[in-house]
Amino acid sequence: MKITGNLFIGAHEVWANAGTMKALNPATNEEIEPSFAFGGREEVDRAAMLADEAFDSYNATSLPRRAEFLERIATGLEAIAPALAERISLETGLPATQLEGEAIKSAEQFRQFAAVVRQGRFRQATIDPALPDRQPRPRMDHRMQKIGLGPIAIFGASNFPISYSVAGGDTASALAAGCPVIVKAHNAHPGGSELMARVIQQAVADSGLHEGVFSMVRGGGNAVGETLIDHPLVKGVAFTGSEVGGMALYRRAQQRPDPIPVFTEMTSVNPTFVLPAALAARGASIGDGFGERMLVNVGQACLKPAILLAVAGIGYDALREALIARVAAMHARPMLTPGIWKSYTQNLSDREGAGAQRIAQGGAAQGVWDGQSALLEVDGTQMLESPSLFEEVFGPAALLVRVKDVAQFVALAKQFRGQLSATMQIDEDDFELASCLLPTLERRTGRIVINAFAHPQEVSYASIHGGPFPATSDSRFTSVGMTSIERFLRPVCYQGFPDALLPEALKHGNPRALWRLTFGELSKA
Amino acid sequence: MKITGNLFIGAHEVWANAGTMKALNPATNEEIEPSFAFGGREEVDRAAMLADEAFDSYNATSLPRRAEFLERIATGLEAIAPALAERISLETGLPATQLEGEAIKSAEQFRQFAAVVRQGRFRQATIDPALPDRQPRPRMDHRMQKIGLGPIAIFGASNFPISYSVAGGDTASALAAGCPVIVKAHNAHPGGSELMARVIQQAVADSGLHEGVFSMVRGGGNAVGETLIDHPLVKGVAFTGSEVGGMALYRRAQQRPDPIPVFTEMTSVNPTFVLPAALAARGASIGDGFGERMLVNVGQACLKPAILLAVAGIGYDALREALIARVAAMHARPMLTPGIWKSYTQNLSDREGAGAQRIAQGGAAQGVWDGQSALLEVDGTQMLESPSLFEEVFGPAALLVRVKDVAQFVALAKQFRGQLSATMQIDEDDFELASCLLPTLERRTGRIVINAFAHPQEVSYASIHGGPFPATSDSRFTSVGMTSIERFLRPVCYQGFPDALLPEALKHGNPRALWRLTFGELSKA
Repeated sequence: MKITGNLFIGAHEVWANAGTMKALNPATNEEIEPSFAFGGREEVDRAAMLADEAFDSYNATSLPRRAEFLERIATGLEAIAPALAERISLETGLPATQLEGEAIKSAEQFRQFAAVVRQGRFRQATIDPALPDRQPRPRMDHRMQKIGLGPIAIFGASNFPISYSVAGGDTASALAAGCPVIVKAHNAHPGGSELMARVIQQAVADSGLHEGVFSMVRGGGNAVGETLIDHPLVKGVAFTGSEVGGMALYRRAQQRPDPIPVFTEMTSVNPTFVLPAALAARGASIGDGFGERMLVNVGQACLKPAILLAVAGIGYDALREALIARVAAMHARPMLTPGIWKSYTQNLSDREGAGAQRIAQGGAAQGVWDGQSALLEVDGTQMLESPSLFEEVFGPAALLVRVKDVAQFVALAKQFRGQLSATMQIDEDDFELASCLLPTLERRTGRIVINAFAHPQEVSYASIHGGPFPATSDSRFTSVGMTSIERFLRPVCYQGFPDALLPEALKHGNPRALWRLTFGELSKA
Repeated sequence: MKITGNLFIGAHEVWANAGTMKALNPATNEEIEPSFAFGGREEVDRAAMLADEAFDSYNATSLPRRAEFLERIATGLEAIAPALAERISLETGLPATQLEGEAIKSAEQFRQFAAVVRQGRFRQATIDPALPDRQPRPRMDHRMQKIGLGPIAIFGASNFPISYSVAGGDTASALAAGCPVIVKAHNAHPGGSELMARVIQQAVADSGLHEGVFSMVRGGGNAVGETLIDHPLVKGVAFTGSEVGGMALYRRAQQRPDPIPVFTEMTSVNPTFVLPAALAARGASIGDGFGERMLVNVGQACLKPAILLAVAGIGYDALREALIARVAAMHARPMLTPGIWKSYTQNLSDREGAGAQRIAQGGAAQGVWDGQSALLEVDGTQMLESPSLFEEVFGPAALLVRVKDVAQFVALAKQFRGQLSATMQIDEDDFELASCLLPTLERRTGRIVINAFAHPQEVSYASIHGGPFPATSDSRFTSVGMTSIERFLRPVCYQGFPDALLPEALKHGNPRALWRLTFGELSKA
């Protein structure tokens, strides 16, 4: 498929003059054609002005029309899925079949959000009818709905180059909310980004929407991202990536004269707690399952289970041996970028310096950016004294914690910072201890899993991909699942409005047959 | 009623040794007995540790039990309403009858939140049942609910010393959400704060809850507030007050190693747009109504309508004369604090320096802190060149804008920053112009009112007291109304849980008969 290296500013593809780059093939360390343009302030300004111009009309689109737009994006993604997967596989070293599945799942996500838009519950339509005879004073008619926040800047990740990128969940949920989107493309997959941008741009045109509903910019260094975050017409930000990057962006946005909402999804070690009865009954199977999951995508997943805690006792050795076997059997594979490979190598060495022992490693690296799998072990007492061992090593490594007793198990659980997910492996005899652990995990975790491993992430109504800091910058939201739309919505109350001036969700007679809260009761009346 | 000057730390009343203060009677400029203790780090630490200890059990209270606790607070407030009003009237100069009404309304607010808790919709219970036969891989059972964020620090305001104070909407909504609360008492009404704290402390005890569910601290200067905001065990903040104070607090919280959600409600001029047909039909009545509202509480209300815009034409002079008459007829009354009086006097003089003309003033001051009412006027062209004229003057002053034509009317609307409310006065012939203005107001405003004045605020399901910056620090939330609870909630997903370990809102069989979203459809099944 055509790849030009252009930026996408509204309805136009434009070249820009702030430098160029080429994609790198991590399997061969060779550059891939063509060159991609870097933009600067001019392109960001133009995209932001168009997004601002687009807001009023896009935010006012009827629910069916907005849903059809999202479905056009889904259809477009499905049509290019094989070509998209092929290009991104070259740029990332991830398997093309896996990427094609990711493209199909991302298309499906746009369809799911189209359904959410048609259902219209995200509007949270609420009606307190007038009470003209109320004492001591009458009540006027009050109606509330949620509308879009404004233009949203989206910073995708490198590790899921479709579902957390240009056509990922952030874009889908922001567009569903009624917000124009400006994506800053990730430079680890520029060709794939372009292909996805073209699909969305085409869907905007085919839907007859204002061109400013979607733009995609690209830049070298941080300047383009900083210009986006600082831009007065940008009203919200979504980011997936490292804690350092996410926090720099977060703090910058909070220093604006008008701070704006920022949701950054950053880091998680997704601890797995193996409770004694489960350990005794099936230690080997748990070790094997954990080992399989931790190595998916060369360990480059936000949901990689990175820390496994078990009380030394019956089943521990079986678990340990099974896990060692998995890690030892894995060959080295290319990591996403040279920077990620370098951090992985450094972090692994740091953790050994902090008292963890390397007890297994996979096949040696062949290519220059190949990540070699590793398993570390530490005893619980040492762990409690080593805060760095609770931190993420992004890559194919995990830490096995040999816990002294149940009291230490609970003490360790309390030392974790915020997490996207935590897992308990339990049998019925573990229910009492699981109940004790549960409040500790609820406080620290967006999702608690029983008897499975957290990866992969469901995209559904109940799924949450969020959690207390530093898993995300705001535990009240999620970046995956249907409720991720809440990040980009704000309430507006309409008081004393004649029907002619009310928005569709709040009109008398409920023309869209939405669920609405009237006098405090839900109905479709 | 007994007033001791103590702080309330969990179940205890304690004296502290970081200084003392007495309340000031703004009508007489005299001190009122007794002395009130200032606390410091020690008291904040103790309150935060207790709140943290209380969280797990309070967050896990059944819905009926939590509702009963809120109802106990309501009953307690009703019982002390006359004494509370009498004391606060001394401390603020506000009329005792008005304050008694505020106490009754605040009690009612706790009952409304008790109803919200019983309904349980705030949990947003969502169930995606297992799909064991799904291809290419099965889905596990996923269940989501919202739980409390953690201990919340609340900073009340001086101008509504009950409904935005110790027993106000912030406390009610945080407690409803399942969050322990630490209030920093406002020093403009220390005796009233103590009386309200005692009611809540007693309700905690009578409900058999952990004592850490509620504490109240007090301090001189900013140290106690800063210690609260910085405290690692505090997980969220609510504030009502000035833009300077709110932003200092907001930025401080964002500089924590782990930033926490902060909702500050700060400033609003609540512009009123008088459209031509309405102006021609009833200019005098609009001027009179606006004048009445702007003078309520000596103009010391977040919802004071402060700017009135009308196109010079038929009805303008009638509106102007009616407004002048209202302002000229108002006698000077004591303002809440010496600081507020000083700012008012200075701000009024600044606005005159920025090109507005004083066209009316009320009776002259008798007491030292009396606020003299004032009406300024400016033409629209001058207004567009004077950004400071768009800013709030907290006190009994307003600005009348003589707008050149409809184009300038729309241009002026686009210059406003974020507002809590905006009002349009319209007749049927104005609908077309109102439709044009509406998107501009939606972007800038939490509540849009037609043919009434924004004050007073309803407390109901659809009511919103929020808005884009600087009205609040986060336009996605409100500090008044039933949805204010959303500030203090975060989602948790439970995956693959046995029924025995699920929280009540998510159990099979739906024991509390809650509205839940199952397979994407709402039902009580």
